[in-house]
Amino acid sequence: MDYVNGPGRNHLFVPGPVNIPDQVIRAMSRNNEDYRSPAIPALTKTLLEDVKKIFKTTSGTPFLFPTTGTGAWESALTNTLSPGDRIVSFLIGQFSLLWIDQQQRLNFNVDVVESEWGQGANLDVLASKLADDKAHTIKAICIVHNETATGVTNNLATVRKILDHYQHPALLLVDGVSSICALDFRMDDWGVDVALTGSQKALSLPTGIGIVCASPRAIEASKSAKSVRVFFDWKDYLKFYKMGTYWPYTPSIQLLYGLRAALDLLFEEGLDNVIVRHNRLATATRLAVEAWGLKNCTQKEEWYSDTVTAVVVPAYIDSSEIVRRAWKRYNLSLGLGLNKVAGKVFRIGHLGNLNELQLLGCLGGVEMVLKDVGYPVKLGSGVAAASAYLQNTTPFIPSRI
Amino acid sequence: MDYVNGPGRNHLFVPGPVNIPDQVIRAMSRNNEDYRSPAIPALTKTLLEDVKKIFKTTSGTPFLFPTTGTGAWESALTNTLSPGDRIVSFLIGQFSLLWIDQQQRLNFNVDVVESEWGQGANLDVLASKLADDKAHTIKAICIVHNETATGVTNNLATVRKILDHYQHPALLLVDGVSSICALDFRMDDWGVDVALTGSQKALSLPTGIGIVCASPRAIEASKSAKSVRVFFDWKDYLKFYKMGTYWPYTPSIQLLYGLRAALDLLFEEGLDNVIVRHNRLATATRLAVEAWGLKNCTQKEEWYSDTVTAVVVPAYIDSSEIVRRAWKRYNLSLGLGLNKVAGKVFRIGHLGNLNELQLLGCLGGVEMVLKDVGYPVKLGSGVAAASAYLQNTTPFIPSRI
Amino acid sequence: MDYVNGPGRNHLFVPGPVNIPDQVIRAMSRNNEDYRSPAIPALTKTLLEDVKKIFKTTSGTPFLFPTTGTGAWESALTNTLSPGDRIVSFLIGQFSLLWIDQQQRLNFNVDVVESEWGQGANLDVLASKLADDKAHTIKAICIVHNETATGVTNNLATVRKILDHYQHPALLLVDGVSSICALDFRMDDWGVDVALTGSQKALSLPTGIGIVCASPRAIEASKSAKSVRVFFDWKDYLKFYKMGTYWPYTPSIQLLYGLRAALDLLFEEGLDNVIVRHNRLATATRLAVEAWGLKNCTQKEEWYSDTVTAVVVPAYIDSSEIVRRAWKRYNLSLGLGLNKVAGKVFRIGHLGNLNELQLLGCLGGVEMVLKDVGYPVKLGSGVAAASAYLQNTTPFIPSRI
Amino acid sequence: MDYVNGPGRNHLFVPGPVNIPDQVIRAMSRNNEDYRSPAIPALTKTLLEDVKKIFKTTSGTPFLFPTTGTGAWESALTNTLSPGDRIVSFLIGQFSLLWIDQQQRLNFNVDVVESEWGQGANLDVLASKLADDKAHTIKAICIVHNETATGVTNNLATVRKILDHYQHPALLLVDGVSSICALDFRMDDWGVDVALTGSQKALSLPTGIGIVCASPRAIEASKSAKSVRVFFDWKDYLKFYKMGTYWPYTPSIQLLYGLRAALDLLFEEGLDNVIVRHNRLATATRLAVEAWGLKNCTQKEEWYSDTVTAVVVPAYIDSSEIVRRAWKRYNLSLGLGLNKVAGKVFRIGHLGNLNELQLLGCLGGVEMVLKDVGYPVKLGSGVAAASAYLQNTTPFIPSRI
Repeated sequence: MDYVNGPGRNHLFVPGPVNIPDQVIRAMSRNNEDYRSPAIPALTKTLLEDVKKIFKTTSGTPFLFPTTGTGAWESALTNTLSPGDRIVSFLIGQFSLLWIDQQQRLNFNVDVVESEWGQGANLDVLASKLADDKAHTIKAICIVHNETATGVTNNLATVRKILDHYQHPALLLVDGVSSICALDFRMDDWGVDVALTGSQKALSLPTGIGIVCASPRAIEASKSAKSVRVFFDWKDYLKFYKMGTYWPYTPSIQLLYGLRAALDLLFEEGLDNVIVRHNRLATATRLAVEAWGLKNCTQKEEWYSDTVTAVVVPAYIDSSEIVRRAWKRYNLSLGLGLNKVAGKVFRIGHLGNLNELQLLGCLGGVEMVLKDVGYPVKLGSGVAAASAYLQNTTPFIPSRI
Repeated sequence: MDYVNGPGRNHLFVPGPVNIPDQVIRAMSRNNEDYRSPAIPALTKTLLEDVKKIFKTTSGTPFLFPTTGTGAWESALTNTLSPGDRIVSFLIGQFSLLWIDQQQRLNFNVDVVESEWGQGANLDVLASKLADDKAHTIKAICIVHNETATGVTNNLATVRKILDHYQHPALLLVDGVSSICALDFRMDDWGVDVALTGSQKALSLPTGIGIVCASPRAIEASKSAKSVRVFFDWKDYLKFYKMGTYWPYTPSIQLLYGLRAALDLLFEEGLDNVIVRHNRLATATRLAVEAWGLKNCTQKEEWYSDTVTAVVVPAYIDSSEIVRRAWKRYNLSLGLGLNKVAGKVFRIGHLGNLNELQLLGCLGGVEMVLKDVGYPVKLGSGVAAASAYLQNTTPFIPSRI
Repeated sequence: MDYVNGPGRNHLFVPGPVNIPDQVIRAMSRNNEDYRSPAIPALTKTLLEDVKKIFKTTSGTPFLFPTTGTGAWESALTNTLSPGDRIVSFLIGQFSLLWIDQQQRLNFNVDVVESEWGQGANLDVLASKLADDKAHTIKAICIVHNETATGVTNNLATVRKILDHYQHPALLLVDGVSSICALDFRMDDWGVDVALTGSQKALSLPTGIGIVCASPRAIEASKSAKSVRVFFDWKDYLKFYKMGTYWPYTPSIQLLYGLRAALDLLFEEGLDNVIVRHNRLATATRLAVEAWGLKNCTQKEEWYSDTVTAVVVPAYIDSSEIVRRAWKRYNLSLGLGLNKVAGKVFRIGHLGNLNELQLLGCLGGVEMVLKDVGYPVKLGSGVAAASAYLQNTTPFIPSRI
Repeated sequence: MDYVNGPGRNHLFVPGPVNIPDQVIRAMSRNNEDYRSPAIPALTKTLLEDVKKIFKTTSGTPFLFPTTGTGAWESALTNTLSPGDRIVSFLIGQFSLLWIDQQQRLNFNVDVVESEWGQGANLDVLASKLADDKAHTIKAICIVHNETATGVTNNLATVRKILDHYQHPALLLVDGVSSICALDFRMDDWGVDVALTGSQKALSLPTGIGIVCASPRAIEASKSAKSVRVFFDWKDYLKFYKMGTYWPYTPSIQLLYGLRAALDLLFEEGLDNVIVRHNRLATATRLAVEAWGLKNCTQKEEWYSDTVTAVVVPAYIDSSEIVRRAWKRYNLSLGLGLNKVAGKVFRIGHLGNLNELQLLGCLGGVEMVLKDVGYPVKLGSGVAAASAYLQNTTPFIPSRI
């Protein structure tokens, strides 16, 4: 009946789905309820209000779709654009690739701006495209804030600056799936028009809510966007928001209570502290990788991701074998290399509900696996590098008795 | 933090989401896992195989979409049809109405066959439309097996007979949301091309899986269907089925384990016994309604639904007040009357994980509420009628020690 | 793996262990913790303070023993008495019998005052014994507040009056296992010296905490009591209370969090409201028994118990068969008749986390079982009587949205 | 509401209560049940049969007391001995000290054989006492298999040899609280008369079951033992065993299901594999301690405990500060030094449901704490030593897919 065997805990270090806090698991361990009773709308109202905080927006309108990140992508696109609309989209890894595939299948006219995997979005090309587009034929810029396949974080503030520089009205649509609640993200400051994430990422919930947040401009655009949509249509939600019942179709009661608990925990820790914690654990991970003598797939420090580190292995090692052994031998779940970097990188997800000692356990495990597969790692070296950094930076937690 | 207050249990008798067995709640109370490990595909394989049994199909291909019934509708339509395709669709209540709305918004050419709410689908009109359609311009018949708003069950065997009689090749798309796992449903025998349900209905899980099952003809149709789709596209699933990894995007780990537990329980009880149990509880409910001197919204016995009973209240009573009081005073969740029957009916959902004494508690509660709102009910009368029937028909459960 | 089979919920109406609120089950669904960390003492401190409220004492000292009611009995006796001490003890049913058996095995000199089962403690005998005991050879009065086997509640206020009348210094030791948190209980007002209960009764927790509360006189007595004791010794606890670490040996972390949640729920409802609710459900039960034409085992109204009703069946019926069928056929758990009333009574426990509709379900079930075993019950009659009363008395719950 | 704060998991490395497997937490997350229904005896029967396996006995009789280890001690002593009986008992640390305190308070005549803390039981003294005791005045030998305070494991096989050598009939009573299910323990082979453990130790359950197992000789002795006992009396259990209802008073339903799940997991892994795993993790821990340049409190290798390691800190460090910081800064729970070794040692519990990477996380944490408090540890050194050993010895787990 149970497929994760062996004694002790599973060490979950894929970049999603991530570890769920026990408080959230408890909050979700419950029977169904009538979502048309007064209780669920009252709960939903608090969620819609509070979820805006994780996007750092006051003017945005959030939607909690019963879907995944892929569905959230579709909702972002189909509500704001019409078939044939020209969009600029950056291909820098597997997830941006998949989003572009979706954009094309939804019949948008996509200018794909490709970078080598391991690099960030080429914003020079963006600038030149905007410069050329006096007629404003470009309707939207689609960008993945954090490419989960390569551990690359794009600079959204710069994207906004470029758009502003050219006074270009294109909508800015951002995939924040592996960034929001973990990396610095500022919807209002950066003029993001649609931002989206999935519950199973830094929010540390099960999969099942695709959270989409729309700026006033995006809401306005949705009124004339001609893409066919029903399930993902914002219009139905907006209608039920007005009625105060909120749900055009049945939500997951469990995920609503889970989201409430997850937000409570995030706010208790403090969103800014959460972001600092992610940076601290990510830095420690990168120091370990360096100590092992391995390379970060991310080519420049400016793109380093604080939620996932893709580690390049020597050519004589198959990175998939590392992932396989980690799981089978040490109950450690690492991320595979995907597509172009399959076999070449393995990924350590360090996002969501994690702390220092969990990370050290993971790093110690990776070292053993590296040795298992024949890489001449010095055992303890990564842990030493990581813990030297962590020991200096880990705060005392005042709320702890 | 908790919005359902008051001592004791909530008595959940809405026609979905329904009561989840404790075993299933337990099975779902867990952390996330890496869905790319060998464990999740191994689990998924058993689910895809076993879920076919609830559709009574051996040739069908099931899809477990991370969505709701509304999403499952969209998947059924967009994978089999092209914009402009003519379809015949039956409007008999709120849920068939919503599906038709979706069909129209997805740009199909819908022949709406309307019945009075409380009646079943008008199959005479179907017959005449098929008789007239020598050119086979009708591409699909869309029908709700059980209309949850009015408690009306349509006769799918007859639909198939009519199609066969006219040797009409139209696809038969069936919403089984409030029927599958509770009413007799036979995908293969009745030549259903797409059948669908939602996890929060008779499967007795949380909301979050839209289960769509496609016949070989439907799979064939999907290859040429031109409706735009990505998230709901079967093609991506079929590709991952072949690869043996099953998931084009992140599933809910918890729902997969929950579905496993739910199927195990259904098979342990025996799917046929489950259907008999639903009939027994539904019959008892109808006898209670009769004893109260109230009318079933369903106009003829042939359409009586074994999953939900819509009860018509006298004109001087607002049925919404019954639902409100039941919840507020007795922690009893009943279904509202929707749209045309708002204020006129309340609904008792008797599907999913329920037994005799839970139903008697509900009926006793309804009696008190009826008295609360001024209806001259004889307290105990409905319980008497229901229990007289149940006492004769409830089986000894052999598996119980 | 699971031994309670069949669809739907188990209907738990034994007089303990009782139904646990979902909030409490959730609060307990957790890993172990170090009980020597600062967190557990901080939690324990709140529990010891708040648990006094359920005894209605401000001067008492509570002990949370990792044991059952039987262990709590032993702790009450051995900490306050010395071998050979004379005590007066009332035998009115199986549980007072078992306590007396324990008293005798612990080598006390027990004056057993026996009543017919179904009657309360004979307080006239108490008065005459006290009157005779000028030398104060009687060291303690032991009395069960509520005899769970027969559904008899003794009048503790009268016991105190008699003691005061004779100015007798005997300690008053009270078994409140099936009364505290459900019946009116006033430790300070009634001059109770040791009161005790078990977590699995009206507190609605799992079995595992025997709660003993000692008056200042009892604490004083414990300093000279010569009964041998270690595990149940108050001295060890008092020592750790002073140190602020509270636990001389490992407590159940889960039960501590569960007790916290259980107390929070009780206080949220209001302890007085809880007591009124118990009276209301008990009255409804008694009205149903009357409507069935059956007799209450409790011989006079003054002794009626608001936590359990023992129902006498006609001589031609074996009450054990009723209990067996209820469980096997309807998933309804009723209490057996014990010892002298075995086969003659069955018991309906109506204590703890329960509401009106749960009770109606139970009563409807009992009616069906009565018919099953050949008693000429009029189905619905008990439910009618109970619901007529409940419909008039059930309050609107203001905290519910 | 929740007192263990901070993000991520608590790292629980006290020598009890220990980490509970998720499967066990799930199995226990349930409502109460009637323990007099047929289901609970059926479950209990399997537990009593299977629990014998963890004692490696076929002839023993197990008792599942709703109590802690302290209560289990009391049950072992009072059922087999009479007041004034002479016993030989070994004082080697805090827990043997507490047991001796209990023995003395229960009025036995205790020959205390003391060793320096950090040493094992002085078996030479045992030999000489037995040699001198021609009259067989010694009624029992009481010995702690594994002293949790100092991490010392006594050699029970040698104890048996000495007893046999002198053909001495004294009963052999063994505290296996921190050994059974983790260390090699052979009740039948070693002629142990009473062995006992607590659920919260290597069985990896919550606190609440004191498991006592009695040899036929011990059962025989219980018939004439004159120690006063009621709650802890084996006689009541034996009576209910014969009746097939098993429980003289209410057990914890949750712990019974939890014990079932815990035993299932142990047997799935294989009890011998579990013991090997404990040895492997313990060896790794000792290698880390050595690498840190710190001393094991246990003075000779023959006494090394595979369930807990007590680490001696330099005189200029207060070991309590290490424990305090570990908890407050890194969410790591370590064991305090107790009594004579307070401030001098901290303890790493490595028993129960644990795996390699959890241990590495702990060791990495200890290193950081050591540095925090000013000990010149080389970060990573302990992890390096431990992982070098683990990487060579960790088995592939065949049951894992």
